[in-house]
Amino acid sequence: MAHDRIRVAVVGASGYSGIEAVRILSAHPFVEISALTSEHYAGREVADVYRHMAGVDLPPFEELRPGFLAGRADAVISCLPEKVGFQMITDLVGSGVRVIDVSADFRLKDPGVHRSTYGFEHPDPALVKEAVYGLTEFHRKELREARLVANPGCYPTAALLGLIPLIRRDLIEPDSIVIDAKSGTTGARRAASVEYLFAEVNENFRAYKVGTHRHTPEIEQEISSVLGREVPVVFVPHLLPTTRGILSTMFMRVRGATTEEDVQAAFEASFAKARFVRLLRSGELPELRNVRATNFCEVAFVLDRRRRTLIVITAIDNLGKGAAGQAIQNLNVMFGFDEAAGLLTAAPVP
Amino acid sequence: MAHDRIRVAVVGASGYSGIEAVRILSAHPFVEISALTSEHYAGREVADVYRHMAGVDLPPFEELRPGFLAGRADAVISCLPEKVGFQMITDLVGSGVRVIDVSADFRLKDPGVHRSTYGFEHPDPALVKEAVYGLTEFHRKELREARLVANPGCYPTAALLGLIPLIRRDLIEPDSIVIDAKSGTTGARRAASVEYLFAEVNENFRAYKVGTHRHTPEIEQEISSVLGREVPVVFVPHLLPTTRGILSTMFMRVRGATTEEDVQAAFEASFAKARFVRLLRSGELPELRNVRATNFCEVAFVLDRRRRTLIVITAIDNLGKGAAGQAIQNLNVMFGFDEAAGLLTAAPVP
Amino acid sequence: MAHDRIRVAVVGASGYSGIEAVRILSAHPFVEISALTSEHYAGREVADVYRHMAGVDLPPFEELRPGFLAGRADAVISCLPEKVGFQMITDLVGSGVRVIDVSADFRLKDPGVHRSTYGFEHPDPALVKEAVYGLTEFHRKELREARLVANPGCYPTAALLGLIPLIRRDLIEPDSIVIDAKSGTTGARRAASVEYLFAEVNENFRAYKVGTHRHTPEIEQEISSVLGREVPVVFVPHLLPTTRGILSTMFMRVRGATTEEDVQAAFEASFAKARFVRLLRSGELPELRNVRATNFCEVAFVLDRRRRTLIVITAIDNLGKGAAGQAIQNLNVMFGFDEAAGLLTAAPVP
Amino acid sequence: MAHDRIRVAVVGASGYSGIEAVRILSAHPFVEISALTSEHYAGREVADVYRHMAGVDLPPFEELRPGFLAGRADAVISCLPEKVGFQMITDLVGSGVRVIDVSADFRLKDPGVHRSTYGFEHPDPALVKEAVYGLTEFHRKELREARLVANPGCYPTAALLGLIPLIRRDLIEPDSIVIDAKSGTTGARRAASVEYLFAEVNENFRAYKVGTHRHTPEIEQEISSVLGREVPVVFVPHLLPTTRGILSTMFMRVRGATTEEDVQAAFEASFAKARFVRLLRSGELPELRNVRATNFCEVAFVLDRRRRTLIVITAIDNLGKGAAGQAIQNLNVMFGFDEAAGLLTAAPVP
Repeated sequence: MAHDRIRVAVVGASGYSGIEAVRILSAHPFVEISALTSEHYAGREVADVYRHMAGVDLPPFEELRPGFLAGRADAVISCLPEKVGFQMITDLVGSGVRVIDVSADFRLKDPGVHRSTYGFEHPDPALVKEAVYGLTEFHRKELREARLVANPGCYPTAALLGLIPLIRRDLIEPDSIVIDAKSGTTGARRAASVEYLFAEVNENFRAYKVGTHRHTPEIEQEISSVLGREVPVVFVPHLLPTTRGILSTMFMRVRGATTEEDVQAAFEASFAKARFVRLLRSGELPELRNVRATNFCEVAFVLDRRRRTLIVITAIDNLGKGAAGQAIQNLNVMFGFDEAAGLLTAAPVP
Repeated sequence: MAHDRIRVAVVGASGYSGIEAVRILSAHPFVEISALTSEHYAGREVADVYRHMAGVDLPPFEELRPGFLAGRADAVISCLPEKVGFQMITDLVGSGVRVIDVSADFRLKDPGVHRSTYGFEHPDPALVKEAVYGLTEFHRKELREARLVANPGCYPTAALLGLIPLIRRDLIEPDSIVIDAKSGTTGARRAASVEYLFAEVNENFRAYKVGTHRHTPEIEQEISSVLGREVPVVFVPHLLPTTRGILSTMFMRVRGATTEEDVQAAFEASFAKARFVRLLRSGELPELRNVRATNFCEVAFVLDRRRRTLIVITAIDNLGKGAAGQAIQNLNVMFGFDEAAGLLTAAPVP
Repeated sequence: MAHDRIRVAVVGASGYSGIEAVRILSAHPFVEISALTSEHYAGREVADVYRHMAGVDLPPFEELRPGFLAGRADAVISCLPEKVGFQMITDLVGSGVRVIDVSADFRLKDPGVHRSTYGFEHPDPALVKEAVYGLTEFHRKELREARLVANPGCYPTAALLGLIPLIRRDLIEPDSIVIDAKSGTTGARRAASVEYLFAEVNENFRAYKVGTHRHTPEIEQEISSVLGREVPVVFVPHLLPTTRGILSTMFMRVRGATTEEDVQAAFEASFAKARFVRLLRSGELPELRNVRATNFCEVAFVLDRRRRTLIVITAIDNLGKGAAGQAIQNLNVMFGFDEAAGLLTAAPVP
Repeated sequence: MAHDRIRVAVVGASGYSGIEAVRILSAHPFVEISALTSEHYAGREVADVYRHMAGVDLPPFEELRPGFLAGRADAVISCLPEKVGFQMITDLVGSGVRVIDVSADFRLKDPGVHRSTYGFEHPDPALVKEAVYGLTEFHRKELREARLVANPGCYPTAALLGLIPLIRRDLIEPDSIVIDAKSGTTGARRAASVEYLFAEVNENFRAYKVGTHRHTPEIEQEISSVLGREVPVVFVPHLLPTTRGILSTMFMRVRGATTEEDVQAAFEASFAKARFVRLLRSGELPELRNVRATNFCEVAFVLDRRRRTLIVITAIDNLGKGAAGQAIQNLNVMFGFDEAAGLLTAAPVP
């Protein structure tokens, strides 16, 4: 069945998530990239800044101005930093443009949690309420009609894909969940800093924001939403000397009689239709390189019987399934395309 | 215009070049992968060994046995190491299967040079004579009818794309050429070794085989073939702590009156129809990341007027344009497909 | 006070731990390196193989032969792989030479655990019983008189330095301990392999041997020894794309009333005299680079009050405090030298 | 013979060169670090910012104010950026404090070259004239009495150590010199930037400032000074994905009868007393890791007879022999210490 191409604009298109969205969309069979914005590079051709996109027909970076997208886009993927895109998104949604927001602005449903996490009052709590949390595998139905999608954070995506199937089936003790996550450096924005200089990250490794990372309440919200009650998680992120990728190693006590077969069945049930989740076989373990530059997620588990502890490991590309890839997967669902359209290229290994 | 898919086998498909060929071919619109061989993994599914190919419909790795491809392939891409594939290639070509050999076995036209370079007498000099040297940009016409293509080495590809346009126009003194090349580690085979362990390569950098690398006579052969006389080059390869990529920095004296405009014109003339050569603008310089996991080559030059020395810099992916990518570009030319079929995905940057 | 130099031989001196021991000992004020062995490089000068040692006066690598050290060493640091050095060590100890064994051969006190872990019957259980487990900070007294020291594994060192102080004071629930450890590639031996090639490790990250790593019983043995009862731990190692370093992130439930002050006091009590343990201040977190090429260990903790879970993080260099550094620290204690002799050089940062 | 310790201040001590100077000096037998300054960290303890220096007795970072070093230092190592330290240095020298300036401010003798290279008129040309260019191996005699040492740039150090011995003996054609240099990222300052973010440098490699780098006139000045006439060099720097290290591959035509023995003899003559130059044996080639975190330089050469071209390769640590290490080597010479005092630690390999 033939599709007319929809017009998609990427806002904040010169950051790491933004340019990844551009790269994926540029090969998408049902999308025409109709506009791109960049604060730093407004007025310049994309290939001037990002030569790997040379030879692809793209609009130039332009400045983000109120109303500038009027009549120019059916959908907008916003890769702006937190707090910058509120007015634009409210306006776009109001004018009938469907929006996928890659920032955290519309993810936290509880205004109080948003305030304590991000340090300011959310300007549009009604729109937050309406926004669909875009963890595609678990929200396909709502996504189809969504006007606004809050695209999940990279750490929450990696964590929730490994946890929700187990919570749905009540196989684990939710109050025992520990998430030890490791991320490449593109989890941080493409902005001048000393902290993320090559010489500071290379041959180094460290935890950061132990117990205080902003993605913690997001993970808790989604677990609690499935579980029907609030549950605190222990979440410790680390900085890997890699450009891309998140590997999440998660520990949790299983409920009394839970077996490997139960866990396997739970994952199979949740991911029966999942095009991008690779449930590994016994003995296999996720690797970052197998998902690099893709929208895939690898999932594996090991049950430590002596301790009745289940170890679940997931791997994603933080810019792929953790940001731009999932945004486009959501776009596919929203517009009724094949969910995998434009997203099936294999990772370049090695 | 619709194509029937041709059947392509990849022999030696589990090495770095081989699996890259599989990755590219698996998304090629006019190719069906009909057979794959691997000495180490015969009998196993590809996705067992290379999970990034999971979900793609591929034949299993099988053993390489005489005649095993009879009737199963229209073309074969051979990624075997040197000296292993002679009989197979002779047999295949004899039976009408078109072959692209990624090894060095059929590259050196002069039997004496082959002997002194590789240490043994070539078993089939007639077939060497017939083989087309597959540097696509300069041999399209012969490639169309070729039964056997000697796919160029990675270093020669990076060097010759920057040199031949200038030699063709007689802009430089050929006897002054110096090639300082830097390659990622996949230039070495995927074989157990201490030398290429992570801990030996990481945070390290070194030259190797200074003045003695086997790609030297290959580069000289092609330059001499254009020039009409023999010319020695100075060639120094180095090992980069990267997985992929070759950057070649080349120095040469220009002939008396040569200007930047002459050089620019020479490159433009040679690459007018080149889909994979990115001739950079003044001020731009090649970067490995812009060509990673692609078939592209970036080319730039600077004329040092004080010294009448031209500096030409090229960047390719050694597994892409330097091996599997160019093999498939050649396949496209041989079978009359769009030369860029299956090869236009943008590099994942960052 | 002046010391005569003792004569120290390093056996297995050309592997990663061995050459690190040589590097440290070569600048040790109270040691003369009297002999070095290497299976691969016997007969060659050290600087032929490891040019960073050029200019240092060292004996050549020689072959390991029965009795070859007779009268030539006061102490031997054995960096042989598991199972290779039994006879030599028994002989040396019998002849009055003090031995520090960096392998795992003499670490596991229980013959059954040794058998199930390493797959063979230990040939000298009496000597195992006598051997002192060389985690210096907790065994100084026994080390002084030890004839044989079983130098701890790298993962156990990183784990136990963060755990034992808490167990000693009964601040945590031992049955809740989860150890998520990440190691650089020199944790694996310097031996030809595909798995540890640069191109397989770079830009990659993965867990391995989940719940089955051989260091698990070693960690459990030492915890159990302090606790007075057996306790299973959950231990998951990961492979970092770095040359050196182990960062261990450990999670455990605290006993009812435990406060940050209690934890701080426990660490201060255990490490009051520890020259190589850096107990970080609140807000600081361990980094691999701060301990690289040193014998230091960084320790920090965060109490997640919502979950009554204590997070303890330690960082060491696997070749330093995790192997050769600690071996020499033990040597210092055994021979009554300043415990820090030869070990106080600052990490090269960046 | 016993020395009283001299008092040394490091100005600009929190940058990459500065903190390397602090690290080396902190273990120097004849030096007491008497003051440290840092624009960013004034008022803080060193170990607060650089925890690898914890446990070492150091003065805190303080602000740089006129006259603040009066009576507090016998020597100052200035690691300030270009143009910032002029007044301070003039004042210090005037007051009898001996200064080693790691910046480029006092390196270029010709005021016109300084102006065209750095874009401003030098404020104190008389002091430039007096300053000794601190390439230790070739200026020991002047260094002994120097009031001000212009410490060489990292690229010039790597280049000149391989070139000057040959020029001194008139073995090569100076007008043919080509320098292809590759540097790790700490060649750039420790300052917030996008260009040097991990994700921009990792798995990447590129040339930069081709033919326009500011170190070119510095290299030319020193060659010309030996040669007695001006000579232009071709110099192309590249950015390596490593933290430290410069490897320089240099190409030049040899004079008519020059043999390998002549070249060997030239290097041996120049480096007979050189404690930090490792002249490699035939077949050996420099590696960055062998000089990492040290003051050593590895030098090797290959004569390509077919082209009468000599290839000279050198490796240094840009922060060691290329900056702080050489500064302290110069300090040793200036104060009559053993030239190698504090500088003989072996590189941590791997």
